[in-house]
Amino acid sequence: MSRVFNFSAGPAALPESVLQRAQAECADFRGAGMSVMEMSHRGKIFMEVAEKAEQDLRRLLNVPDDYVVLFLQGGATGQFAAVPLNLQSGGQAMDYLDTGAWSGKAIKEAQKYGPVNIVASSQSHGYASIPDPSAWKLDPGAAYVHYTPNETIGGVEFHFVPETGNVPLVADMSSTILSRPIDVARYGVIYAGAQKNIGPAGLTVVIVRRDLMERKSAAVPAVVDYALQDKNESMYNTPPTFAWYLAGLVFEWLTEQGGLAGMAEINERKARKLYHFVDNSEFYRNPVEPSARSWMNVPFILADDALDGSFLKQAEDAGLSGLKGHRSVGGMRASIYNAVPEAAVDALIEFMADFEQRHA
Amino acid sequence: MSRVFNFSAGPAALPESVLQRAQAECADFRGAGMSVMEMSHRGKIFMEVAEKAEQDLRRLLNVPDDYVVLFLQGGATGQFAAVPLNLQSGGQAMDYLDTGAWSGKAIKEAQKYGPVNIVASSQSHGYASIPDPSAWKLDPGAAYVHYTPNETIGGVEFHFVPETGNVPLVADMSSTILSRPIDVARYGVIYAGAQKNIGPAGLTVVIVRRDLMERKSAAVPAVVDYALQDKNESMYNTPPTFAWYLAGLVFEWLTEQGGLAGMAEINERKARKLYHFVDNSEFYRNPVEPSARSWMNVPFILADDALDGSFLKQAEDAGLSGLKGHRSVGGMRASIYNAVPEAAVDALIEFMADFEQRHA
Repeated sequence: MSRVFNFSAGPAALPESVLQRAQAECADFRGAGMSVMEMSHRGKIFMEVAEKAEQDLRRLLNVPDDYVVLFLQGGATGQFAAVPLNLQSGGQAMDYLDTGAWSGKAIKEAQKYGPVNIVASSQSHGYASIPDPSAWKLDPGAAYVHYTPNETIGGVEFHFVPETGNVPLVADMSSTILSRPIDVARYGVIYAGAQKNIGPAGLTVVIVRRDLMERKSAAVPAVVDYALQDKNESMYNTPPTFAWYLAGLVFEWLTEQGGLAGMAEINERKARKLYHFVDNSEFYRNPVEPSARSWMNVPFILADDALDGSFLKQAEDAGLSGLKGHRSVGGMRASIYNAVPEAAVDALIEFMADFEQRHA
Repeated sequence: MSRVFNFSAGPAALPESVLQRAQAECADFRGAGMSVMEMSHRGKIFMEVAEKAEQDLRRLLNVPDDYVVLFLQGGATGQFAAVPLNLQSGGQAMDYLDTGAWSGKAIKEAQKYGPVNIVASSQSHGYASIPDPSAWKLDPGAAYVHYTPNETIGGVEFHFVPETGNVPLVADMSSTILSRPIDVARYGVIYAGAQKNIGPAGLTVVIVRRDLMERKSAAVPAVVDYALQDKNESMYNTPPTFAWYLAGLVFEWLTEQGGLAGMAEINERKARKLYHFVDNSEFYRNPVEPSARSWMNVPFILADDALDGSFLKQAEDAGLSGLKGHRSVGGMRASIYNAVPEAAVDALIEFMADFEQRHA
């Protein structure tokens, strides 16, 4: 089959040129006589790959010098435990914003390690909006404030950075990182599972303000100990070398696209088009409050959910893959990360219009 | 460059036919119109890949039905914390055998979570032998007994399975798993980082006797919670899908080689040849007691360490890569895992003989 348009929520589409390069280099890495998967992570060749990936990521995100960048394992879910274990101690409260499925999982995990204070919740609004900051109950003595800038399942996104005073802000950016420029200096910790905008599943990028690495409990597992991994350049244990290499190819591709300012322009246009189409249809509906709509994950429901099955089947046949909504919410979801081209959104809209005409 | 013989300790050589297949399928997975890296882990295609890999691994190792097989992240180092967190509680002692660098790291990590009892240590013998079981101080009330069947750095291997009565035996099999048949029923938990005999770095296989999954502390991070991951078929969080897929290709390759009985025959022959050559040389020396020598990692030192640099340089030039010993012990090390063909050992011996003749 020729290449499909892939709207999966994660693992998700990768840039086609990155895959082609990975394929060309798969068995013999740049004349080394072996695959990048077979190389020692401490050897000269891989160390250069790793270092270049970090430098490219730093340049893309404009990471200040007082932040470390770690390439770890365990995904965002691993960081749900790693964050409290690294940043909290002595019964200090941890502030969490509850805006959907993923912040809910982060909260549940943090509760294993200490007292969690729910700053605000949009649960009573069906997680379809962002709670108004004027009503947030921030604890000025909290170890940190955690939030989920983009809720992959609900399709809800913060279009502002929370103001937390001197309390470090921690963000699970798994589904929004690299989609536009951010001001890293506003954050204490940023973490992201790779499988949406960075690379293959199994890699986790963690960006930590250096002064926060002192504040940890005694029982943090070595593999997610920020200070230990920093000291060992993310190689205290063997890193996921292939995923790290592939992330580096994605960073090079992003640079070629004009960096994050370029991506932001494309991503905003893709999202705007799709929401515009949905809003102007009587047949499709997006449940999220307009000011909180995600650029990355666009859930939509059909007027008649009895048609869900044939929508998905016909979409697959038309080369539009991965549109099924998360099993916890149903309906449809188009994840339109960096590597999903604008042509995919155009094709989706065309298909949706045609389907509507035939079934409305 | 044509393909080299790769003696790296890990990440390590993969079977050439596996790499060729991965290359062929890299951009378009079996007609799906996308890479296996881009697929949802919960989609039909990847679920079949994942399930087949598990079944093939179960068949290769003859895993009994009352054991679960998990595909996790974090490597053996992640399991150094996961094992005590899953198996120990309430101040119960944990028995550890201290036989080298890797068991030492496991001990250090376990000490974060409870009292460690050192059953026996070969430290006073320079970690060049296995302590005599008649002198082991096992604690009959311990939560488990942990050991490292093969010490990758020291090149020391247990050629017997410790007898621990009713106390579950836990083994870090990272560098020996799949090198020969084992009796899984003798173990409580077996774990292994993938990057030696299984596949690419970033995947960890954990085999757990089902009844042991009840005995965990409250604070085990979800990503390494055996019971939770079992309930979710290793997909509580997004698994490292590409590494899992590639491990499946390695399992298919192993089956084609005649399974583990076939591998054992080849591996024993490879190791025997190399030790025989070293023992019959005045120029090279292996420091390990013969009864404890590893089939997988063969360290050797040159009569004059001033020649180390030119040995390594000339070996590289001859297409023999990754022979530098671990930085903590120096000298040389040939890791001869499953995917290192017998021809590689023959070529190494030929090179060593030639080097000796020119420099002895």
